Amino acid sequence: MNHVALEKKILSENDRIATTLRDRFAEHGTLCLNLISSPGSGKTTLLERTLQSFSPDRHVAVLAGDIQTENDANRLKRFGFPVKQITTGGTCHLDARMIERHLADWPLDQIDLLFIENVGNLVCPASYDLGEAAKIVLLSVTEGEDKPLKYPSVFFKSELVIITKTDLLPYVPFDQQAAEENIRRVHPGVEILPLSCSTGAGVDRWLHWLEKQAVKTEPLVSK
Amino acid sequence: MNHVALEKKILSENDRIATTLRDRFAEHGTLCLNLISSPGSGKTTLLERTLQSFSPDRHVAVLAGDIQTENDANRLKRFGFPVKQITTGGTCHLDARMIERHLADWPLDQIDLLFIENVGNLVCPASYDLGEAAKIVLLSVTEGEDKPLKYPSVFFKSELVIITKTDLLPYVPFDQQAAEENIRRVHPGVEILPLSCSTGAGVDRWLHWLEKQAVKTEPLVSK
Repeated sequence: MNHVALEKKILSENDRIATTLRDRFAEHGTLCLNLISSPGSGKTTLLERTLQSFSPDRHVAVLAGDIQTENDANRLKRFGFPVKQITTGGTCHLDARMIERHLADWPLDQIDLLFIENVGNLVCPASYDLGEAAKIVLLSVTEGEDKPLKYPSVFFKSELVIITKTDLLPYVPFDQQAAEENIRRVHPGVEILPLSCSTGAGVDRWLHWLEKQAVKTEPLVSK
Repeated sequence: MNHVALEKKILSENDRIATTLRDRFAEHGTLCLNLISSPGSGKTTLLERTLQSFSPDRHVAVLAGDIQTENDANRLKRFGFPVKQITTGGTCHLDARMIERHLADWPLDQIDLLFIENVGNLVCPASYDLGEAAKIVLLSVTEGEDKPLKYPSVFFKSELVIITKTDLLPYVPFDQQAAEENIRRVHPGVEILPLSCSTGAGVDRWLHWLEKQAVKTEPLVSK
């Protein structure tokens, strides 16, 4: 089997497991969101801000992916919600089997909202369906407005683009209008949400977006 | 053949081509440097600043890798040195065969210094030897001091770590001392060079480092 054929086989096996995950999420009314970005674009910081805003009786959980270290899980655990680190040990993305394995002892009917924080990588994670309801891509203003054109796949596949670290706009040569045009060239009509976890600007819109998605999943809920 | 076996085969085929490239670089006295970082850490900006500082009779060339767009090559061409874009069309890294192919019509004896700007990705490019004399990893202060621990492979394999965008230090929660400790935990003794292409701070040290490497290769030069 050549490389391309093997890659197809791996992806189709991944898709098969992702489909069973998606069915399980729907059955239990779990909204699963897959957060993807470059290293250091602010996925963990956004999740910190998000968990902090939730009341303790909310049924939220996080799976945090990294190649090495349990740092992200440790940062997120202090909010009291269930958090697990997935350490890939070298693999550049999360795959559906890793998600399936790490969910094995979590009762999904007690999780209404599941965040998956992918490995920091704007390329490979876009190819692996994790059974999520939506992919969300984060782009920080320090990365430059050309990135959506250079890494189109993840921007095309995401339901929401979050432009992070907008508090740094005065200090970096980031043309936000050009960035939004580039995003829409790759994915016309996609929702774009600029925010700063430092100042809090835009965070309310993000929390509102989350509530909207939670409502949307209700027709899928069987319980 | 399973996935692991195929990956080994691909990497060993890559290593074989990289070895012939390395021999050719040595034969022609070409110093080849492979720049790796996350998307938007400042590889192209550093190369702009570097090319700008060179006199026009210097024998320098650049191969710039990206998944899509010729943006980087266009930015770099205006300095008058030979520049080629390698568009991978989805592949998350450059490999030795791409380098070999794009060098086919370049007379190496007219290139003393060859920069390879890899695809923006802190994971996969670390696995692919391109025949370079050294890998150089860039880490911007906006990415956070924990990244060397999370992405150890590229930091371990690089001869130089450049901490970029130090002009943003007053505005971001980046602990430079902790970053340097983390880098040295992964790669004891590696050279670390903080700089800012906006203010120019540290750029002289980088140019000096380059000259030092060029001198080092002289014993290898056969011409």
